[in-house]
Amino acid sequence: MLVFIGLGYSLRHLTREAIDWLGKADVIYIDTYTSLYEDSLENLRNLNPRAVFVMAKRRELEGEAIGRVVEEARHKTVAIAVPGDPFIATTHDALLSEAIKQGVEFRVIHGVSILNMAYSRVGLQSYRFGKMVTLVYPTHFKPLSTIETIYDNLSRGLHTLVLLDLRIEESLAMSIPEAVQILVELDYKGGLGEQLSIGLARLGWRDEKICAGRLIDLAGYSYPPPPHSLIVTSRLDPVEKEIFEYWRRQC
Amino acid sequence: MLVFIGLGYSLRHLTREAIDWLGKADVIYIDTYTSLYEDSLENLRNLNPRAVFVMAKRRELEGEAIGRVVEEARHKTVAIAVPGDPFIATTHDALLSEAIKQGVEFRVIHGVSILNMAYSRVGLQSYRFGKMVTLVYPTHFKPLSTIETIYDNLSRGLHTLVLLDLRIEESLAMSIPEAVQILVELDYKGGLGEQLSIGLARLGWRDEKICAGRLIDLAGYSYPPPPHSLIVTSRLDPVEKEIFEYWRRQC
Repeated sequence: MLVFIGLGYSLRHLTREAIDWLGKADVIYIDTYTSLYEDSLENLRNLNPRAVFVMAKRRELEGEAIGRVVEEARHKTVAIAVPGDPFIATTHDALLSEAIKQGVEFRVIHGVSILNMAYSRVGLQSYRFGKMVTLVYPTHFKPLSTIETIYDNLSRGLHTLVLLDLRIEESLAMSIPEAVQILVELDYKGGLGEQLSIGLARLGWRDEKICAGRLIDLAGYSYPPPPHSLIVTSRLDPVEKEIFEYWRRQC
Repeated sequence: MLVFIGLGYSLRHLTREAIDWLGKADVIYIDTYTSLYEDSLENLRNLNPRAVFVMAKRRELEGEAIGRVVEEARHKTVAIAVPGDPFIATTHDALLSEAIKQGVEFRVIHGVSILNMAYSRVGLQSYRFGKMVTLVYPTHFKPLSTIETIYDNLSRGLHTLVLLDLRIEESLAMSIPEAVQILVELDYKGGLGEQLSIGLARLGWRDEKICAGRLIDLAGYSYPPPPHSLIVTSRLDPVEKEIFEYWRRQC
């Protein structure tokens, strides 16, 4: 069986169910490349000292490795342990899809995710969010679809969760100030810098920092290191506005 | 301190952090009215036998009660324990807002939520979801905004998560077949019944059932009792399509 396990972002986020399945697994692949984790992932070994434990790089869970991992799961309990919730990022969809094709049983054990936290942590209403986006570094092309999505959400009165580029194997992690600069440069309609926004640094970590202000203001605060993300808000309702002002005062 | 704690939907979903804070609280209010829980919420008493434990109805956490609960949290650790993640439903925003106004310290401890699970459990891509909606019973008015949101999301190639009306204190919980009937009746443009959709019954529970098919087909399957929800999908990409067909075969 292939068991996809959401780890959340710290050992504190482990659910009883995740601990159970990690304990039962014969082989545990830890995804070390899609997201950052507050605690050392090495600690997870203690939950099951008899399991084969692989601190997996991308090449160990993607591409040619997929067939091998799925085959291994035919007769063993193979855990794919992922920071956050397993399929919020699309990284492991190919493994799931191959398991289905090969008729190998699978399970999904949910964890706390950034989506979850961003939608519920800061006092904005979850049903007022539109499509979310990831802002990538404009190395090969300008990420114009990101700005189009923000415009489109704003035109419907919806907030936008903007996840920021995280390429762990290249040691690249976009910060809020970098993101603000990229967004303001892409903003061909003008005025996006004035939009009320929230910067989320290390959300759910012990040293998380949440700052609110105009998008352009967010570039001026200091934050603990990434992972960072951003929310560009649309018109705020009275309760949202009140909580927004609270975060503004924290910075 | 006021500590909002997400419980997930079963005792298996409790995080270490949630267990910790439930153990430290002086008073624990269990929200029994916004969502259904797989296990008996009474079991939570075992995590902290010395705490004052309130199986709270709506009137104990809303309206006039808010000031009293926040005042109690000024000198005690008061936990508001909520199925799912604390603020995905907007039910407890007023408590948070009052705590901020009164200068009473607060924390949010995240749990697994329906949003999380629906976006990551069924193999659709989370960044392809538009605004989510709740479909309510058309008792006083036709919930036309729900259908408008689905149309709007479809026109942008986005999936819609449709949460279904749950009024626990009135013993009302909308089922997938009821929802399909209401949506098809509201569908003034026509053709919504043909849209590929996914029915989610008791997602994350031991007896969960996930069915895929045309919206109209979903009314014909049998499900365990609510909570239920629905996803109306837009155009599916190849990987989404493959996993969709897997769920179709489960029904």
